Amino acid sequence: MRASCILLCFLMCLAVSSAYPGKKKQYKPCKELVLYFHDIIYNGRNAANATSAIVAAPEGANLTILAGQFHFGNIVVFDDPITLDNNLHSPPVGRAQGMYIYDTKNTFTSWLGFSFSLNSTEHHGTISFIGADPIMVKTRDISVVGGTGDFFHAQGSRNHSH
Amino acid sequence: MRASCILLCFLMCLAVSSAYPGKKKQYKPCKELVLYFHDIIYNGRNAANATSAIVAAPEGANLTILAGQFHFGNIVVFDDPITLDNNLHSPPVGRAQGMYIYDTKNTFTSWLGFSFSLNSTEHHGTISFIGADPIMVKTRDISVVGGTGDFFHAQGSRNHSH
Amino acid sequence: MRASCILLCFLMCLAVSSAYPGKKKQYKPCKELVLYFHDIIYNGRNAANATSAIVAAPEGANLTILAGQFHFGNIVVFDDPITLDNNLHSPPVGRAQGMYIYDTKNTFTSWLGFSFSLNSTEHHGTISFIGADPIMVKTRDISVVGGTGDFFHAQGSRNHSH
Repeated sequence: MRASCILLCFLMCLAVSSAYPGKKKQYKPCKELVLYFHDIIYNGRNAANATSAIVAAPEGANLTILAGQFHFGNIVVFDDPITLDNNLHSPPVGRAQGMYIYDTKNTFTSWLGFSFSLNSTEHHGTISFIGADPIMVKTRDISVVGGTGDFFHAQGSRNHSH
Repeated sequence: MRASCILLCFLMCLAVSSAYPGKKKQYKPCKELVLYFHDIIYNGRNAANATSAIVAAPEGANLTILAGQFHFGNIVVFDDPITLDNNLHSPPVGRAQGMYIYDTKNTFTSWLGFSFSLNSTEHHGTISFIGADPIMVKTRDISVVGGTGDFFHAQGSRNHSH
Repeated sequence: MRASCILLCFLMCLAVSSAYPGKKKQYKPCKELVLYFHDIIYNGRNAANATSAIVAAPEGANLTILAGQFHFGNIVVFDDPITLDNNLHSPPVGRAQGMYIYDTKNTFTSWLGFSFSLNSTEHHGTISFIGADPIMVKTRDISVVGGTGDFFHAQGSRNHSH
């Protein structure tokens, strides 16, 4: 089981942020949100508990293994519960749904495309993410590319994973 | 066959919209466009008419079924004609091309990544979409994440599906 | 082997660009960067050199061929070296990682989702791309949808491919 923690720092006030152009400046987030999500991959026996499954692989299409030990080319689809603390059994506030691709032959990295669907008393809407995910690095960033509902026009994110 | 109607409401005038920060405000679109697209999934016999196909599935990689009745984990690639009214046989003004993933174990939802390629006398360019798609909800939103040609720098969208 | 050249023209100064709304205006990029990336598809024998592999296909899931000659429905995962000139053997400055989908039944086009991970003395960070890619057109655009590190908040792109 892999648990990830996402610290969302939204830049809702775009006009203010972009008024100071420059490559290395510090953007000040206007809204912060900490969420955890929990991934249990399907191993052929845990259908009731599994939240994700390998759906494509070089072996599947080519019947050969390209870089098996680092899962290069595997596509995993997931439907993970989101909680407000690092506990799989806490009441979920939404689902993290989408896919990731193992995309390096000689180490573990992935490429993510997924959305958070939040449906709690405090937040209602979706946030979509795209980007590279160097799994072996403890804290890394991923881009927010869109949102709906409460998160309409959301941009920018910092992702802390453990 | 599934026909979807997309009402595009572009926010071309970003600076104006973002000048009024606040979570629940109403964004005023600067440009509206109504398009229909038509999806005919490949069933093994309709190769001439089919516009989409299942290309990956947990069964394919694992040879086991995880949540078959809701297609969890299936990836569908599509190449659907876009028309200006809800009629598959109207002259197409472009193609909706990309993929969707069935991403919930116990209901029908999907995660979309696709682009409209428009090539008519009125519009020329592409619009790219990313996001969660709760299929069972009649009207839902999906985010515009990019565009080229006439749609360069397009952002924001409302999706009405039937 | 397919080599692609990407000319990145970033719009870092969003506020300025969006101050002049209008459909056909010329955006002035604030930063340009030319990168090449090199794709060698896995053919079952070149595991050491291959940088990409077909991981999903209509044949894989359905055991039938839908539009084989144009690879419709195939998903390719890639991990390509990025160089500063059009030479596979130049020292790489990063990796282009992600996937593309062949998405037309009667010609070659693809839909791309990938990121550049740059890690050189000059640039450190990732840039994420989404969009339609009409392969047969010599010069085409693809949208930048996000970035991290040096490329945080990057938007807009022009893609020159050969």
